[in-house]
Amino acid sequence: MIAARFENESDHRWSPERIPSVLRGNVNAPMAKSAVLLHESWNALRNDVETALERYVESAPDCPEPLGKAMSYSLMAGGKRLRPILVLLACEACGGDTTAAMPAACAIEMVHTYSLIHDDLPAMDDDDLRRGRPTNHVVHGEATAILAGDALLTLAFEVLARDIKPTRVAAACCADLASAAGRAGMVGGQMADLEAESSEMPTLEQLEQIHRCKTGRLLTSALTLGGRIAQADDDAFNALTTYGQCLGLAFQITDDLLDIAGDVETLGKSTGKDVAQGKLTYPALLGVEESQNRARDLIDEACRSVEIFGDRGRRLDALAHFVLERDH
Amino acid sequence: MIAARFENESDHRWSPERIPSVLRGNVNAPMAKSAVLLHESWNALRNDVETALERYVESAPDCPEPLGKAMSYSLMAGGKRLRPILVLLACEACGGDTTAAMPAACAIEMVHTYSLIHDDLPAMDDDDLRRGRPTNHVVHGEATAILAGDALLTLAFEVLARDIKPTRVAAACCADLASAAGRAGMVGGQMADLEAESSEMPTLEQLEQIHRCKTGRLLTSALTLGGRIAQADDDAFNALTTYGQCLGLAFQITDDLLDIAGDVETLGKSTGKDVAQGKLTYPALLGVEESQNRARDLIDEACRSVEIFGDRGRRLDALAHFVLERDH
Repeated sequence: MIAARFENESDHRWSPERIPSVLRGNVNAPMAKSAVLLHESWNALRNDVETALERYVESAPDCPEPLGKAMSYSLMAGGKRLRPILVLLACEACGGDTTAAMPAACAIEMVHTYSLIHDDLPAMDDDDLRRGRPTNHVVHGEATAILAGDALLTLAFEVLARDIKPTRVAAACCADLASAAGRAGMVGGQMADLEAESSEMPTLEQLEQIHRCKTGRLLTSALTLGGRIAQADDDAFNALTTYGQCLGLAFQITDDLLDIAGDVETLGKSTGKDVAQGKLTYPALLGVEESQNRARDLIDEACRSVEIFGDRGRRLDALAHFVLERDH
Repeated sequence: MIAARFENESDHRWSPERIPSVLRGNVNAPMAKSAVLLHESWNALRNDVETALERYVESAPDCPEPLGKAMSYSLMAGGKRLRPILVLLACEACGGDTTAAMPAACAIEMVHTYSLIHDDLPAMDDDDLRRGRPTNHVVHGEATAILAGDALLTLAFEVLARDIKPTRVAAACCADLASAAGRAGMVGGQMADLEAESSEMPTLEQLEQIHRCKTGRLLTSALTLGGRIAQADDDAFNALTTYGQCLGLAFQITDDLLDIAGDVETLGKSTGKDVAQGKLTYPALLGVEESQNRARDLIDEACRSVEIFGDRGRRLDALAHFVLERDH
């Protein structure tokens, strides 16, 4: 399924020391510096997010135990925590208080996790492994996995609506996340992806449309949620939106490139699957070099868009460069 | 599964002329009068709700067509529209503008519908029929049915967050609905119900706990959403909560009684299933007469609680009496 690998992030941790990346030959000095800067704070941010997630998922005396366990199994399964960290960095870039953004960071990770649980179901992608562990339905049973996904999606909106202040911003965040995650966003993208499977090879345009919906909208929502909480003005908001859109597509392209040139051990998953399965990828459509160029252009655009934040946007800049440099 | 019949409402329309009800012998004059009063407005309210629902489900140019069709298939499948009408009547009772409550009425029906789609899935209750029509996954396939449920749940929060005004009330409505529908409410109740299936016969206390979560919380949320939109004070809010809790249990008891004494044709589904399947029901636990008494007591309490609304609460009063009198 298109973009499945994007969703299927390995639990291997991001670190800029890992070399060579698929694009290492093109890395210039500022990028390497950015990556080091990011590395210094990434683990701290991720730990904060995990602490907050754990508190949310565990604080429900009225939740039946098997349901709580299944929710926690997937929510606390590790991963890069890319989306919640984007919420926090976007809030920071706009001069907001990142502590105030933590409920939104947790909410978007809940939505991301629910989508993984449902996408893995036998009726959907029928995956047995996720981040090197058995998928939710394999461990907890299909019925419980469906309910755990439903409950995580619902909890995301409860957390946003109740814990984001002021309430005006809470309502705007709920509408933003719901729109990004819904029929014309993530769920719609998954549906379009299922349709594409049983149809002719899609064009690059169709491929990008699926990526934009299935993964891009939620990634962009991470940025705009952070901006909303910082009560960003229109210019800042537009900058964040551009950054999110560019980052999402660039992430997908590097994912496709890694499938060709990545190292199995570093990546934590097998490579060459796309070619073997005849999947439509950027390198297949554009060639390796042109794909690298496109990823680089997108990241350049992302970084330019956050220049307006000055020094406060430096971690968003670093993160964008890191997407280009990553080797897993 | 406990309470499955409550969810499995037939498409037969409520009308007070249908006699005899299982409790007809105990109906007194004010009840019959209430029922007539309710009947006069029920169809109009339901039509308003259906028009609004149709507008919501159809207005999404970016939604893939098969997904939109699957969402619409279940959302526009008829039914009593009990929950949305409760939202409107609660808002009316508190002196609010029912037009302003329509987005919440639609949102709660979307949540109810998503729960039916997911509950019917092969991994859950594995039902082929719902309201006399093939279930969503039978018609649209399992993957699409899962996604249609996900999209309806997500849309519910988008509608609430975007269309309820002021935004302070929108946020409160999102939190209310999410709490009622989530791990400690409807989804939790469904989980507890699945657990109960594979365990010993539960006690009356456990049975009521499951009903309270699986169906009662959402029903009560319909009332409190209406109250929130009317910006009701604490007394009004408490009255609505009591009414919702009593109505939910009374509805369940009459459902159990109808399974014993109801007419197959009027009911639109087979009777005697509970006894045949050895299910735990109120009549099985308390006997028929005691169950009737308990339903009547609950409805009395519901009606007493809405006396504080005076004339504005008369349709809630009528609806409660009607639950007692209903024959399907």
